[in-house]
Amino acid sequence: MSTRTPSIEFTPLTGAIRALAMDAVQQANSGHPGAPMGMAEIAEVVWRRHLRHNPANPGWSNRDRFVLSNGHGSMLLYALLHLTGYDLPLDELKKFRQLGSKTPGHPEVHYTPGVETTTGPLGQGIANAVGFALAEKMLAASFNRPGFDVVDHRTWTFLGDGCLMEGISHEVASLAGLWKLGKLTAYYDDNNISIDGEVGGWFADDTKKRFEAYGWQVIGPINGHDAAALQAATEEAKADSERPALIICRTTIGAGAPTKAGTCDAHGAPLGAAEIEGVRKAINWPHPAFEVPADIYAQWDAKAAGAKAEGEWNALFAAYAAAHPELAAELKRRVAGELPAGFKTAADALIEKVQAKAETIATRKASQNAIEALAPSLPELLGGSADLAGSNLTHWSGTKDFLPGVNDANYINYGVREFAEVAIANGIALHGGFIPYTATFLVFSDYCRSAIRMAALMHIRQVMVFTHDSIGVGEDGPTHQPVEHTASLRLIPNLNVWRPADTTEASVAWIHGIERADGPTVLALTRQNLPFSARSAQQLADIRKGGYVLVDAADAKAVIIATGSEVGVALAAQKQLAEAGVPVRVVSMPCNRLFDQQDAAYKAAVLGKGLPRVAIEAGVSDGWYKYVGLEGVVIGMDRFGESGPGGTLFKHFGFTPEKVVEAIKSLV
Amino acid sequence: MSTRTPSIEFTPLTGAIRALAMDAVQQANSGHPGAPMGMAEIAEVVWRRHLRHNPANPGWSNRDRFVLSNGHGSMLLYALLHLTGYDLPLDELKKFRQLGSKTPGHPEVHYTPGVETTTGPLGQGIANAVGFALAEKMLAASFNRPGFDVVDHRTWTFLGDGCLMEGISHEVASLAGLWKLGKLTAYYDDNNISIDGEVGGWFADDTKKRFEAYGWQVIGPINGHDAAALQAATEEAKADSERPALIICRTTIGAGAPTKAGTCDAHGAPLGAAEIEGVRKAINWPHPAFEVPADIYAQWDAKAAGAKAEGEWNALFAAYAAAHPELAAELKRRVAGELPAGFKTAADALIEKVQAKAETIATRKASQNAIEALAPSLPELLGGSADLAGSNLTHWSGTKDFLPGVNDANYINYGVREFAEVAIANGIALHGGFIPYTATFLVFSDYCRSAIRMAALMHIRQVMVFTHDSIGVGEDGPTHQPVEHTASLRLIPNLNVWRPADTTEASVAWIHGIERADGPTVLALTRQNLPFSARSAQQLADIRKGGYVLVDAADAKAVIIATGSEVGVALAAQKQLAEAGVPVRVVSMPCNRLFDQQDAAYKAAVLGKGLPRVAIEAGVSDGWYKYVGLEGVVIGMDRFGESGPGGTLFKHFGFTPEKVVEAIKSLV
Repeated sequence: MSTRTPSIEFTPLTGAIRALAMDAVQQANSGHPGAPMGMAEIAEVVWRRHLRHNPANPGWSNRDRFVLSNGHGSMLLYALLHLTGYDLPLDELKKFRQLGSKTPGHPEVHYTPGVETTTGPLGQGIANAVGFALAEKMLAASFNRPGFDVVDHRTWTFLGDGCLMEGISHEVASLAGLWKLGKLTAYYDDNNISIDGEVGGWFADDTKKRFEAYGWQVIGPINGHDAAALQAATEEAKADSERPALIICRTTIGAGAPTKAGTCDAHGAPLGAAEIEGVRKAINWPHPAFEVPADIYAQWDAKAAGAKAEGEWNALFAAYAAAHPELAAELKRRVAGELPAGFKTAADALIEKVQAKAETIATRKASQNAIEALAPSLPELLGGSADLAGSNLTHWSGTKDFLPGVNDANYINYGVREFAEVAIANGIALHGGFIPYTATFLVFSDYCRSAIRMAALMHIRQVMVFTHDSIGVGEDGPTHQPVEHTASLRLIPNLNVWRPADTTEASVAWIHGIERADGPTVLALTRQNLPFSARSAQQLADIRKGGYVLVDAADAKAVIIATGSEVGVALAAQKQLAEAGVPVRVVSMPCNRLFDQQDAAYKAAVLGKGLPRVAIEAGVSDGWYKYVGLEGVVIGMDRFGESGPGGTLFKHFGFTPEKVVEAIKSLV
Repeated sequence: MSTRTPSIEFTPLTGAIRALAMDAVQQANSGHPGAPMGMAEIAEVVWRRHLRHNPANPGWSNRDRFVLSNGHGSMLLYALLHLTGYDLPLDELKKFRQLGSKTPGHPEVHYTPGVETTTGPLGQGIANAVGFALAEKMLAASFNRPGFDVVDHRTWTFLGDGCLMEGISHEVASLAGLWKLGKLTAYYDDNNISIDGEVGGWFADDTKKRFEAYGWQVIGPINGHDAAALQAATEEAKADSERPALIICRTTIGAGAPTKAGTCDAHGAPLGAAEIEGVRKAINWPHPAFEVPADIYAQWDAKAAGAKAEGEWNALFAAYAAAHPELAAELKRRVAGELPAGFKTAADALIEKVQAKAETIATRKASQNAIEALAPSLPELLGGSADLAGSNLTHWSGTKDFLPGVNDANYINYGVREFAEVAIANGIALHGGFIPYTATFLVFSDYCRSAIRMAALMHIRQVMVFTHDSIGVGEDGPTHQPVEHTASLRLIPNLNVWRPADTTEASVAWIHGIERADGPTVLALTRQNLPFSARSAQQLADIRKGGYVLVDAADAKAVIIATGSEVGVALAAQKQLAEAGVPVRVVSMPCNRLFDQQDAAYKAAVLGKGLPRVAIEAGVSDGWYKYVGLEGVVIGMDRFGESGPGGTLFKHFGFTPEKVVEAIKSLV
């Protein structure tokens, strides 16, 4: 057996983890035994001696959060949840990685009680953990009062070499150090192995030095199989309330496996029957697969301790509620994710105001106006931008930056870190108590695309303000001009992508994004001014249907479908066509996904069954054939842009009323 | 004037840079004067004293490479190219940021002589620079002979706070240190300012310590306006041939601007007439806009030195060619990007072999077989994977890992760093001498999406092997199952996305990707086995048209369009339908973009004008309405997947012959 850490004391407590993990992977004939077996001692120390949680109530708001950033080691987490008493019976472990089980291949939030976030895409778990720790710190600053630390929990995370190689680990560790997230503790499973073999050929960072450069407390390297060393390191980490801690744990991947331990063969495949038999001997675990003796269960059981911890907190909270009734009610509301009573009033007032003002402004400016109108009634709104606040227009008059010493803030300066931004915001949203909004240029949604996807997959409420949404960006050129981004974001399931045409649509999109509790919202917003359209009450209501008739014509001969900045072009074309005796309808479609969800009758009524159609959008055309059909025309942009003034580019690339007129005339 | 570096000696040499930059930005009424003015002294030292280049021949293969990673400071580069004698006349500087000029908002390769790579998306320039330095090192190892260092140049890059905050800087700096890229020198424009203001609130890394942790030589902080200090630091960097160097240069953004220097107001907007007048006084530059005195031009002019340097190299190369004629011819061929004579033979043999073997294997395995067949004839093929070689199947029998001391290699272990991988490969390809291929799971194309886009924008030849291309991934679950990725990659202009259906299509896709000199190729490949289809010579030839009739039926009543793993499903459905008396045609469409480029007659012939159509692909459906129309049916997957065995999932989500039969019957 190859080991980097010769002395491992195999105990029945860690034996239960190792056995459940290897047996479940074997039964599934799929999975990753290496990490659970290599991190068993770390898990025992954290989960039995430090983690404050109540298996009977995974929703207890003040529980510690645990994130398995190396999510492929999911059986470690499932074993821990099972052993400590969560509603995850053996039957579910036996169905590891099977369709419909509570034990999917990677941990998935909302599937399994006790799983805090979905992990697997490396580096994003630690990013979520930074979000959890940040949310705790900020919520505590707003709600705790002397004698009443009602928000007071820690965040624990496990991570491996893969997480540390990923770029996002740099972005989030840099922020965590700066933000002094002293209640965040990370255990680095330093096992020297990644999928391709021993990491030396592709990973030689001095990780201790690197994290010290971020302002972290770095402990170790220690023997990650030595419970006493782990306990001491954990105590040391807890004693430092200023700095997040990285505990570097030298471990042997697949520890306990007679021939595969310490090799990449233990990483991501079942060990095989013979090796498993060898493990049972090596770790002195004589029990059959999926059998854990009652006394071992008893030692792992965290239900009583959890009930006690939550009970004490309940008492504290009751006293807090007596002393600070309004704060207590507000905290309850915030962690429940319920919108405040004043929100609807503010939202209605916003709509009324933009309708009355009828302004010709950029939709990024309309977005800022919406924030300005909604934020005062919505203290959970937690803004931010990746170093583009002045361009994204994400500040408002009440912006209070989160800075050293200013923890009861409502705005995060994420720096030039788009991926960290969205992934941390995912953690913040999962923690509860906040509705995060984030921002960058639309073209840089590519930098954070995987986190956007994770937000959609996890049904997270987050509003992403992506400005400079087309060649309208102008002089910055093709590196900064999104042409495929709006269309490609629309392809992510459960992601609402809005491309509003004016102040009203932008306001509705913002309100809808706040109200939408089960998924994220992207706002694709212009740099340049867009004209205002007047709307009837019905049209106003129909914006939420994602697509609606903005201007109709009696006996319309064709339909123009447009979004965002091209709605104005469509309206101008409609006028020209009317003058030429060709009546056409203009459909505004700010959110395709919502439109697709309408019933067939509504969709047919809007699109005008049988009428020829032209779609116009300053972006790639493919997605629009779904609405115009094979005989329709799409005026799009199936190439990269160029550097030049925005107005020049719109003309150059054919986003003009004349082109629309021409297309319509070719059809009718 | 706020300064972090009180003593600046304003000279006419740096005055020319400052004046050209501020005047061009002012004329364009758009752009970034801050970085050019802040980095003028650094630029003078590097470009006048160290950079080995020949302005008359930007294509000289042994020139030093220069990368402006903070690409928004493009006027710095344009000023340098103009002053040193490149074909970039004043008229072009006066047209800064105008449509059709050679001076776009960000530096764009192929637009401007002397621009090596397109930069702007932060962090990717330094990644490209790492690729340049790596390519030089590897090419030198293969071609240099004692006394003949015919490949021997340096790579220089400028970068700012933004680049260092981005996660990709971590990934590439880690690799550059490990790879001992001693000829790479980076100048960090440490000006304490990013767009949102002074960086202290969001960026507090100890960057020196961080880069030391990567194994870099870190010099400074020095006064970035002190030419003597810059000269000494540069000499120190050059003296260390083992470690890449980061020179930390404390600078004042917009140095020379009386009121805006040292503030974010100097970053990204014209200074304004009054401030510009103030600069002229402060830096003692009395000349009108766009006027540079002849003596200043003379001091900047690098044409004579460049001609001499290239002349000396030409002499060296002539002697090398005499001593090593075959090597010299091969090097010439490689840097010219011409395929070797043996490639076509190998490609033809591969196709013949796969047709004869008719294997039922996964397309990832077919891809590996293609590499195995093509690589021996193609020494420029430089493979790699982001820690998934065994899953992506990117190794072949001749794989030679790039490792410390093994520089004449053909395979890079990028570690778990997808973004670095593709961005470094972009630099390798731009350098010349190599055709890089890269690999990861398709779902993680999200991590490197911006670099994929940059490859397409820059017309880079790179083959990206993205395996595990659908819910066929199985047990790993939705975090690892791409459903929207193939479709969303298809939306990137100039990117060929192939989803081959069997060994033959996979082989053709590989060959096409190698032959395609003007853009990147994505291969979306299965984890699971796919059946083989026999093809006529015409069908074989038509694969390159992106879509073709795979199996026809006399008097076909409908058409089934499919890609990749769903082609087999379509063929099974066709059989069932034939038995039920409904003859249908099956179209395989492995590369939509190539199909879209065919003439209307070909497309109509393949798709069967007027015939009802069903498209099936285990991914999001939107893009397929372009081919099936409003009356057609798309069998797709407009939701996230689940964890479970792949076969189970295909049935569960309806990718079965029965569903296709049902859809066809609903139409005919």
